[in-house]
Amino acid sequence: MESTYQVSGMTCGHCVNSVSTELSALPGVTGVQVDLATGRVTVTSQNPLDTDAVRAAVDEAGYDLVGA
Amino acid sequence: MESTYQVSGMTCGHCVNSVSTELSALPGVTGVQVDLATGRVTVTSQNPLDTDAVRAAVDEAGYDLVGA
Repeated sequence: MESTYQVSGMTCGHCVNSVSTELSALPGVTGVQVDLATGRVTVTSQNPLDTDAVRAAVDEAGYDLVGA
Repeated sequence: MESTYQVSGMTCGHCVNSVSTELSALPGVTGVQVDLATGRVTVTSQNPLDTDAVRAAVDEAGYDLVGA
């Protein structure tokens, strides 16, 4: 299944890598796609994701989950 | 001695780290200071630096040396 989030603060490919790495480490996550221009992050996972866990992962990377 | 350069394209702390790491690896370099807001990079070194080597290091990090 796919879940889409909005992440603020990413400015470059390094930021994309950081967010992707943290989200990829969440249990059940099988893929992460980040659109740097829009801040749109699409996560593919085996099961529904816990939004708090997603928020914590984004925060750990140094960015903010917006409006979720 | 200190040399100052202008680097374009850095957008975040990761970029700063990349540039700092590459420049720090140059022979004789003892310190690197980067001002992200201005793109101004100050390199402290034991000897005068070869501008082509500085340019190559900045390029290796993924950025551009401006007007040097």
